[in-house]
This record gives sequence, C-alpha cells and structure tokens, in this order.
Amino acid sequence: MSRLPDSPLAVSLGDPAGIGPEVIAKCWDNRSAFNLPPFVAIGDPRSVAAVWDGPIEVIADPREADSAFDFGLPMIQLAAAQADIPGHPSVAGAHTSLDSLELAVGLARSGSAAAVVTGPVAKEQLYAIGFQHPGQTEFVAERCGIAPANVVMMLAGPTLRTVPVTTHLPIRDVPDRLTISLIESRGRATLRGLQRNFGIAEPRLAVSGLNPHAGEGGALGRAEIEVIEPAIAALAAEGWIVTGPHPADTMFHSRARAHYDAALCMYHDQALIPIKALHFEEAVNVTLGLPIVRTAPDHGTAFDIAGQDRADPRPMAAAIRMAVECAQIRAETA
Amino acid sequence: MSRLPDSPLAVSLGDPAGIGPEVIAKCWDNRSAFNLPPFVAIGDPRSVAAVWDGPIEVIADPREADSAFDFGLPMIQLAAAQADIPGHPSVAGAHTSLDSLELAVGLARSGSAAAVVTGPVAKEQLYAIGFQHPGQTEFVAERCGIAPANVVMMLAGPTLRTVPVTTHLPIRDVPDRLTISLIESRGRATLRGLQRNFGIAEPRLAVSGLNPHAGEGGALGRAEIEVIEPAIAALAAEGWIVTGPHPADTMFHSRARAHYDAALCMYHDQALIPIKALHFEEAVNVTLGLPIVRTAPDHGTAFDIAGQDRADPRPMAAAIRMAVECAQIRAETA
Repeated sequence: MSRLPDSPLAVSLGDPAGIGPEVIAKCWDNRSAFNLPPFVAIGDPRSVAAVWDGPIEVIADPREADSAFDFGLPMIQLAAAQADIPGHPSVAGAHTSLDSLELAVGLARSGSAAAVVTGPVAKEQLYAIGFQHPGQTEFVAERCGIAPANVVMMLAGPTLRTVPVTTHLPIRDVPDRLTISLIESRGRATLRGLQRNFGIAEPRLAVSGLNPHAGEGGALGRAEIEVIEPAIAALAAEGWIVTGPHPADTMFHSRARAHYDAALCMYHDQALIPIKALHFEEAVNVTLGLPIVRTAPDHGTAFDIAGQDRADPRPMAAAIRMAVECAQIRAETA
Repeated sequence: MSRLPDSPLAVSLGDPAGIGPEVIAKCWDNRSAFNLPPFVAIGDPRSVAAVWDGPIEVIADPREADSAFDFGLPMIQLAAAQADIPGHPSVAGAHTSLDSLELAVGLARSGSAAAVVTGPVAKEQLYAIGFQHPGQTEFVAERCGIAPANVVMMLAGPTLRTVPVTTHLPIRDVPDRLTISLIESRGRATLRGLQRNFGIAEPRLAVSGLNPHAGEGGALGRAEIEVIEPAIAALAAEGWIVTGPHPADTMFHSRARAHYDAALCMYHDQALIPIKALHFEEAVNVTLGLPIVRTAPDHGTAFDIAGQDRADPRPMAAAIRMAVECAQIRAETA
C-alpha cells in the first residue's frame, strides 16, 4: 500500500439512533483486522457510548486524530440537544446527523480530512427538519458546488463496480427517463471517476441493455437502438473504451466481469442486484464527480436492530478502506 | 443418492449446427467426473461425429442405452436430409432439431425415458419452418396437453432458484402485464414444482417487488400494493409459505437466500441477473407444471464457437444431473 494521506478520514456518524455509532465503534475495535487507517468520527459521543464500552478520545482538531487513534476512537464532538435512544429516531437526532455531515464535508473541502465516509441517515427525519435534497449524495454535491446531475453513485465491490443511470424511479418511468444525453453524461462521469478515484488510466465501461436480451435487435424493445447505442457511440467517439449494450443477465458472471472496469446500468435494481448478490458485505457506495472523495456503506439506519450489538461493521470498514485508497490515488495523481 | 430411474434420460441434440452435439459428447467423455447417469442422445450422429472423435453407439430402443453407455455415446438416429456444418444453421437442421425434441418428449411421455433434457435450438430457424411456439418450453407443454400459461420456467442453481413471472417482454410492458392472477398462478406452479420436482414438502416462496425498494410504501410505484401483495395474500390463504414483496436488491445475498426455496421475480432480468451472476456454469432451466421432467442448459446455440472445441459442457452436465434428481424424486413420491 502507498503511504497514507497526511490527514485522517472524516466519518459522519449518521443518525445517532441508527446503527452508525455501533458500526463505527466496531471498526475502531477491529482497526487492525480490518486494516483501517486513522479516522475521526464526527457526532455526539453520547450516541457512541450508549452502544459501546470502548474508549473515546474527544479531539478538537482532525490533526490530533493520528496520535489519538491508538488510544481510543477519535471523535469531534457536536453539540446535541439530547442523547438519542438507539432505535428511536428523533428530530434532534436528525439535526445532529446533518451537522455531522456538514462538518465532515467541510473538513474534506478544506483539506483537513483526506476523505469523507458517511454513516446512514434517516431521510424521513431529515425531510421533517427541512432537508431539501433527495439524499446525502446530492447534499454533498451542493456543498461542493457541483450540480447533482454531474455526480453519479457507484457501487463498488472487490470484483464488480456498477453505476445506475436512473435510481429511485418506478420501473414504469424508467424507459422514458433514459435519454442519450443522460446515459452519455453518466458514462462520462463514471469513466472519469475510474481514472480519478481508482487510478485506471484507460478505463473500460460496459453498458447494459434495458430490455431482456438487450432488446434482441428491436424485437423486445427499442431503447437499445434508439437511446443506448447512440450514447455508446458518442462516448466512443471521444476516445473512451465503451462496449454494449450487453444483455444484463450475461454481463455479471466472473468471466464477463473481467472484461470491464465498471458496468453502466439502466436502472436501480439492474445495478444493485448483482453487486449485492456477489458482494453484500463489501459493497461500497462511492460518489463520483466530486472534488472530494466520499464513500458510504451501502446500508441504512437499521433502527430495528440498533443498540443490540447485532450490526455488521464490515460494510463500514469497506467504505473506510475504499475512501483511503481513493484518496491515495488522487494524491498521487494530483 | 437414491437408485437411478429404470429408464435412461433422453437428450435432444438441439440445432445440429450449434454447440449441442459438442457439449453432449463432452458430457459422455466426462460422465464419471460429472457424475452422470446413463442417457441417450437423439439426433443425427453425423453432427456429433463432425465435432467429436469419440465412440457413438447407435441404438434403436432406449432400453439399450444402459448397456451401451459404457462403450460409447448412445444415440437414437434420426433421418436427416443432410449433415449440417457446425456454425452454419440450415432449414434441414431445424427440421432435425424439431424431430429430436418431438421424439425425446414422446419417449418421456410413454415412460421409455425418465426425463427430457433439451439441447439449444435456433428459434429463427424453427420459425422459418413453421414452428408456432415462442420456444421449446411451450412446445413441450403442448405435446403434454398442458396450457402454456400453466407451465413456468425456473432457473435453478446450487444455492438459488428463481422464476420470472413475465419473460420476453420489453421492460416498458412489464408493469401492465403483471396481474394478481398471473402472479398467483406462477407462484402456485412454482410451489407445486418445488414439492413435485425437488421433494420439498413445505416449500417457501419469496416474492420480489417490481420497483426499487419494493416501491417504498407506494412512493416508488404502486404495483407492490395493488398487485403483488394481494397475490401473496391469496397464496398464503391457501396455506402456502409466501413472503414479500421483498426489495429485489437485498434478496439474493447468501444469508437472504437461506430463507426461501425459490424466488418469484417480476421480470426476466430480475430473475436471471442473480442466478447467472452466482451460478453461470451451473444454472439449469427446469420447466415446472409438466407431467414429465424437462430440463435444459441455460445457454443458446452459440453458432459463433460451434465446431471449435470451445464449448463448456458444464451447463449441459448440470441439466442432466438435475433431470435425474427430479426424476428420482418424482418416482419416490409417486
């Protein structure tokens, strides 16, 4: 591994009543086994202490994280109105989770943190306090001065990376939402992200079809001919290595995966079914197109198991590892 | 393993210019390593000899297959107008592939064969000679006197079985094609098939949602509320163990798969992406709802590699093994 970045990673706790505090604490517990670099958690230390008996090192400056990391979980303390009860989300907790996210992004923007890893938030709670973004990704994009349309969500595991062109849409609305320019811009952001975050000089993108058998020459739908193929041609004309449209069912087995660096998929489940079937505990959500590195574990707040010592820290550990790897690559190629 | 059925398996060669002859011959070559029971191939021996140097034992009656199997690949010879050239499909070859399928089904119907395994055919060629069915499955159903609506295609691998409710439809048409009664009848046929072909007395069916996050309570689509949930309720009211609608992206990882015996999926790629991502070389197409056992490898004719000794026989071997296992279970529970 290359040398570590000079700054620690900033990890936002997410909703204090969810499993974020528990999985972050467990990551510190298992920092050697998980091969984790120094990180600083940002939130209310009481929400960690409520679910974990280990040592917490409250620090004021991220630069202290490195030396504190050997002695306890470094935390930057946020003022919180109340200590949340695990499994019982509140409006106060939503405010704390938003403050945590905001500070983590600010630290990364200023260079005080090498990257941001975000814990899971409860969107309903955030909406209740006036949060205007579909999710954390769009919030981070806005804080970085990037239009949400120019950032893409990648799901990355050890043997597969996928990017959905459309995300939280009913299946019925997907065909009309797909346009040549949308596929093109998502594809371009993905290819640039593979260069920038993953250090792949000549990235290879495999584009899926929308319909069964990639439309079978038009017999099973015309999106491939009218929308996807022109988008592929446009990207190829810019010099990118792009193949497809591939039938979605035959592009995710191990031999097929060896032929590309990322799969650009037409809808949410087309991208998420294969990554979660293959890499459920290791799939990381990586936001591409930002001036900073941002990753997240691909799970929610899991309020139903919060505070029961049942949460699996491996997805958070994978998100932390991937954040530092991407930060290293960016630092080396900057 | 229980004792073998008294009759051999009948294997139709599929299109003589495709990879069917090669993979069947390689199965005989590797019959010990693949743990295969006696089978008889039905077709034109010249199409096997064109791609394979091994011994062929032409027999007239399936009862001879058992003793012939030690000496060569048992074949029941079909009169063919011409010897096909690998990779070059012809109208004559389409006739031979149809005759082969017809005879294999007839042998199974009469009890002279324990089950049918079908090699891959070229649908375009079959349509050119007046074939009226969407595929081999519907042809077999009709020859067995079963309405095509009452048979279902299951994809079965070592750790996952999936059934698509809709198959070769553009994604755009899927939402309107889904009805309570269609999901119900596919679910019922799947549950009965798990009992009959797989010997699972109390089968557990997991039903997927159509939309991302299974519609998220209606925010991402209403098919779950209006169509899928009522179908699940109707099946549960009959006493079946049915759960869902499950978000499709989180139902195929290993811990989730342990909770059900088959997943009922709403569309082609939702069922085929996970099975092929996990079990590309071992996924078997099993037709449920028939009076006979019918399986098939889940690949096509692959004309582009036919005759080049490059075809992988493992899917055909898996189809043969699954056919004999299902036939044994049926024989024991009959």
